[in-house]
Amino acid sequence: MSGSVLVNQLIEALRCLPGVGPKSAQRMAYQLLERDRSGAENLSVILAKAVKEVGHCEQCRSLSELKLCDICESTNRDRSVLCIVETPSDVQVIEQSTNYKGLFFVLMGHLSPLDGIGPEEIGLDLLAKRLDHDEIKEVVLATNFTVEGEATAHYISEMVNSRNITASRIAHGVPVGGELEYVNSSTLSHAFTGRQVF
Amino acid sequence: MSGSVLVNQLIEALRCLPGVGPKSAQRMAYQLLERDRSGAENLSVILAKAVKEVGHCEQCRSLSELKLCDICESTNRDRSVLCIVETPSDVQVIEQSTNYKGLFFVLMGHLSPLDGIGPEEIGLDLLAKRLDHDEIKEVVLATNFTVEGEATAHYISEMVNSRNITASRIAHGVPVGGELEYVNSSTLSHAFTGRQVF
Repeated sequence: MSGSVLVNQLIEALRCLPGVGPKSAQRMAYQLLERDRSGAENLSVILAKAVKEVGHCEQCRSLSELKLCDICESTNRDRSVLCIVETPSDVQVIEQSTNYKGLFFVLMGHLSPLDGIGPEEIGLDLLAKRLDHDEIKEVVLATNFTVEGEATAHYISEMVNSRNITASRIAHGVPVGGELEYVNSSTLSHAFTGRQVF
Repeated sequence: MSGSVLVNQLIEALRCLPGVGPKSAQRMAYQLLERDRSGAENLSVILAKAVKEVGHCEQCRSLSELKLCDICESTNRDRSVLCIVETPSDVQVIEQSTNYKGLFFVLMGHLSPLDGIGPEEIGLDLLAKRLDHDEIKEVVLATNFTVEGEATAHYISEMVNSRNITASRIAHGVPVGGELEYVNSSTLSHAFTGRQVF
């Protein structure tokens, strides 16, 4: 242990970060205190503010410090398309890598009856209201391709179809740069089923 | 970008941590806000406190929120041995892995005349006073085995020897678990020079 109680506490506190073990926490603490006090101060202020102020957007359930997040508030988005994702980080990934310009709805999880997570826990009552009252023409299902994600997508697609709205699912297939030899068999089988005219 | 200015600011602020790029910062921000608000709050409080209160120990120059760090303050240490290291993390590593029970002196760097870092910048005036006034019998030089670290060790050894105090250097050699085939030649040559009766 170092000769300072406070430095040890800081090392311990840094371990709440994902992927940070004792060695990295130690490195981070010394880096912050020896070389980047202004960065450390900035981080402490913004972290405190974010913990206090960031809640959920009333419309899409994503993280936001305002009643409505920037995406829901924006006038430049196509309000007839709604993309369903599991987490706020999925929103960020889609915003960064695609040219999708519709709105989002964040489940903050997926259906998992065994863990007590049913339709209400992932906000499907709120989604039903939006489907009934907003002018939505297509729902893009972008939940993960895990068993739970697929089940959730299936459940939502039935809600959507029963209201005569189109439900679509993002494509399964071989990832860009992927070699057939190393792709797992179920992905490859999906890639064949979903083949398109070239 | 996510739909929240504050979340984006948090992601940016997390990047001051060493080894944290845009992807990890994003993962950390979402993890803290979605799953570990209490950890995040704790981190922000301790970080703010550490930035404000942690300074340097007056005696050994290591990081400490008190005038004297716990090691210098302790009554269980052998005050006749002084170990010289470059950084506070070196103190921590030595405390964790060895049974060294003497005191420390932290240079907070090494001699580097080209960067304007001379003896005073690394506290050698303070070290000289301690050598003159404290009852030190041995100085263990544990600076890094880099060119600058070796030069610094050499400079300090002359200061120490001129006062009729023993200066020692921690051993060079093959690391534990190391295979001769993969050890670099200069380490191997040092290991031969420093061989001991078995």
